[in-house]
Amino acid sequence: MDPLLFCGNLVLTRTRAYAMRASEDSGAPSFRIVKSSKRAQQTNNPIREFVQPDPPRKLPEGRSLIKLSNGDPTTYGNLRPPKEVVAHLASTITEGVADGYSLSMGSVAARESIATWATETAGGSSTSKVSYSTKDCFLAAGASGALECALGTIADEGDNILVPAPGFPLFRTIAGGYGIETRRYKLDPEKLWEIDLETIESAADDRTRAILINNPSNPCGSVYSRQHCEEIAQLAARLQIPILCDEIYADMTFGSSEFTPMACVCSDVPVLTVGGISKKFVVPGWRLGWILVHDPVGALDEVRVGLRKMTTRMLCPATPMQNAVEYMLSGFSGHLRDLMKVLEENAALTETRLNAVPGLNCIHPQGAMYAMVMVDTAALGFTDDYQFAEKLIEEEAVEVLPGRCFEADNFFRVVYAAPASILEEAFDRIDAFCRRHIVNE
Amino acid sequence: MDPLLFCGNLVLTRTRAYAMRASEDSGAPSFRIVKSSKRAQQTNNPIREFVQPDPPRKLPEGRSLIKLSNGDPTTYGNLRPPKEVVAHLASTITEGVADGYSLSMGSVAARESIATWATETAGGSSTSKVSYSTKDCFLAAGASGALECALGTIADEGDNILVPAPGFPLFRTIAGGYGIETRRYKLDPEKLWEIDLETIESAADDRTRAILINNPSNPCGSVYSRQHCEEIAQLAARLQIPILCDEIYADMTFGSSEFTPMACVCSDVPVLTVGGISKKFVVPGWRLGWILVHDPVGALDEVRVGLRKMTTRMLCPATPMQNAVEYMLSGFSGHLRDLMKVLEENAALTETRLNAVPGLNCIHPQGAMYAMVMVDTAALGFTDDYQFAEKLIEEEAVEVLPGRCFEADNFFRVVYAAPASILEEAFDRIDAFCRRHIVNE
Ligand SMILES: Cc1ncc(COP(=O)(O)O)c(C=O)c1O
Ligand SMILES: Cc1ncc(COP(=O)(O)O)c(C=O)c1O
Repeated sequence: MDPLLFCGNLVLTRTRAYAMRASEDSGAPSFRIVKSSKRAQQTNNPIREFVQPDPPRKLPEGRSLIKLSNGDPTTYGNLRPPKEVVAHLASTITEGVADGYSLSMGSVAARESIATWATETAGGSSTSKVSYSTKDCFLAAGASGALECALGTIADEGDNILVPAPGFPLFRTIAGGYGIETRRYKLDPEKLWEIDLETIESAADDRTRAILINNPSNPCGSVYSRQHCEEIAQLAARLQIPILCDEIYADMTFGSSEFTPMACVCSDVPVLTVGGISKKFVVPGWRLGWILVHDPVGALDEVRVGLRKMTTRMLCPATPMQNAVEYMLSGFSGHLRDLMKVLEENAALTETRLNAVPGLNCIHPQGAMYAMVMVDTAALGFTDDYQFAEKLIEEEAVEVLPGRCFEADNFFRVVYAAPASILEEAFDRIDAFCRRHIVNE
Repeated sequence: MDPLLFCGNLVLTRTRAYAMRASEDSGAPSFRIVKSSKRAQQTNNPIREFVQPDPPRKLPEGRSLIKLSNGDPTTYGNLRPPKEVVAHLASTITEGVADGYSLSMGSVAARESIATWATETAGGSSTSKVSYSTKDCFLAAGASGALECALGTIADEGDNILVPAPGFPLFRTIAGGYGIETRRYKLDPEKLWEIDLETIESAADDRTRAILINNPSNPCGSVYSRQHCEEIAQLAARLQIPILCDEIYADMTFGSSEFTPMACVCSDVPVLTVGGISKKFVVPGWRLGWILVHDPVGALDEVRVGLRKMTTRMLCPATPMQNAVEYMLSGFSGHLRDLMKVLEENAALTETRLNAVPGLNCIHPQGAMYAMVMVDTAALGFTDDYQFAEKLIEEEAVEVLPGRCFEADNFFRVVYAAPASILEEAFDRIDAFCRRHIVNE
């Protein structure tokens, strides 16, 4: 076969295989089309695709877009990181104390402070004690980087991991690029999004490398009870499948809901816990996250070596932020209390307002900064949640994410981090929109 | 086969397959050993392995370690980023103007400023003009992240890329994890490390997805003439293989050596150029790098889509630093001049001092912050460069990297970013060391 025409798995026709420069001169140089890897092709992030369509969506005239779409607490400027933390990072930069590379898995000081903090958090619970040391902690560029590193370390192409549906699409984005299959297990809206454990059991097989648990949940805003966490742990132990948990919303709970670190209930299951500062400290742009290794059964020695190797690909996460995290985790419970007070009030407003809208049903949120809202698309005359979300932008300039982004048909996700006045305006618009579209009220 | 015993490609014995908790009680829980992925196993970074041995190396008593090993210009605090840049980033942080997520490929403003800067750099050359726009630029967490993204986008498992020997090991670290084969082409120390072009030709085949060019070079400190760049471009055009060039040391040249951006000489070859701020601005910990797409032949449409998809895995690079890069690239030629003056003086000192040491021969460096030094290991009584470098630490507390890290037997790499006084002390020690070990002077 003509090697120029053979590009990896694709056999191209001669017309496609050569790209002629768009010029008139006949002697224009030619070069074969360069294909992109399967890896890149399989890397899909539905949120980015909805939020940045090409061409951009038209907005209704004279109305500014209200974005309740991005999981970014900084969008409206009403929530801020603690002043002292900002000052600390600014002086780290000014003094130039952390401009160089660190160890690739992160500086000893930063990892030690995370290990200490995580041990204290775990110790707060009564029945089991989890203890981390510096060597159990691996830093990464955000929780995203931590997930990328953890998933890359535990599963090969052709292996599978179990992910929640509804679930944060980044799990599929990353796994897809690696050729790791994602199999869904179901969360039950009737039980405040608890896991339907039978769907884990039926999805697992001998190529299942991890059960991914996201608690508190994006997009559901749910918080699992300690008892539910114990049930999950027991199932993982029985299936002999490690748990990978994404706890970036740790401690971001409302009212009587209490956060249980998964590792605390796993005395006979190895757990990798992903965490970070993006949400709790209102600094997603700072890009610092981590993996904590909890290995009560001595099963993860090889995984530790693998995690360390994987961190050497990108040298290290930003070092000024590594310096900041030591300071951040040493206090600021007051900041978290204030933040959660705002989010809890906003959550209540969201639930009340949206439940008064015909065709919508907001599932009660218990934490994080999200709620899932069920849409009666038929009653509202839409084909699906995607069309609902698109029309809501085009007619009312309110951006929420369609359930399809999370594998949750007939839902949308709302982020309630904006100021209450903006939320009220958005809910007014959503209310008008639904009343206008309702078919049979 | 018992599925518990079958872990991916490895069949484990029952004793290995179960890890018993190190406890006395017979009812201790068990869990199978969790294996790490092939990907993690194939991710090897020889620099990290030499610099962080386990257990750590013993140093001679009473002597502090002089590190001429890390490619980190901040190690000794003598080189600093421009004061104005530091102040700018500190106020970005203080004012909280860039704490949120950006687009995953980077903010429009940052990409625009990089595209403008790169266009101006390219325009400085006489014969060809290269022009970049915002859509040609993709940001990443450091040049490492940019390499990880670019390599991941252009090659699949089983494909190959051509890399320089001697060469920066990160190319192999990243490619190895992806299952991309790295084939070496040779740099010729007799020609100031120019490429032996025939070795490119003989290494290439129809699975070759890119020729990776690193100019100025780590570890060689070489700078290619415009003519040599043109020869490389012609060869790539004839072979119909895209160029991936790592130009993180762009403009870091000494004396009459002039930097030629590879894209400038590629009018009929698609080029992906990786760049960053780590070295030139003395801020490797800030973790900002980029990919620029130069596509004179219209061959990279699919690759652009792929690059964009790959950036969505880790959401975005640190946003305060994205904000800073706009400012950084708007000026600071004085800073670069001052930096290069120091490095050039240090390079001359290094060459003079090491060429006076029996058994060593420093190849003349033309740029970056490195030189490769040939070691007559036989004359010095060492089995190889690795043993040489290890003994140099153990006996004289001077750390340089053995050639083996760069696939260059009988060399070591020296980083001359330290203050001259420290370099002098290091060279005194190296001199004493070699005089003590020389077998037949
Ligand atoms: C569940 C979950 N995991 C991970 C992330 C990524 O966080 P980071 O900004 O630390 O990369 C997010 C961000 O939205 C998230 O919601
Ligand atoms: C040739 C080369 N490319 C890339 C890098 C990585 O640079 P960054 O700090 O931007 O990730 C280095 C760092 O030493 C390098 O020498």
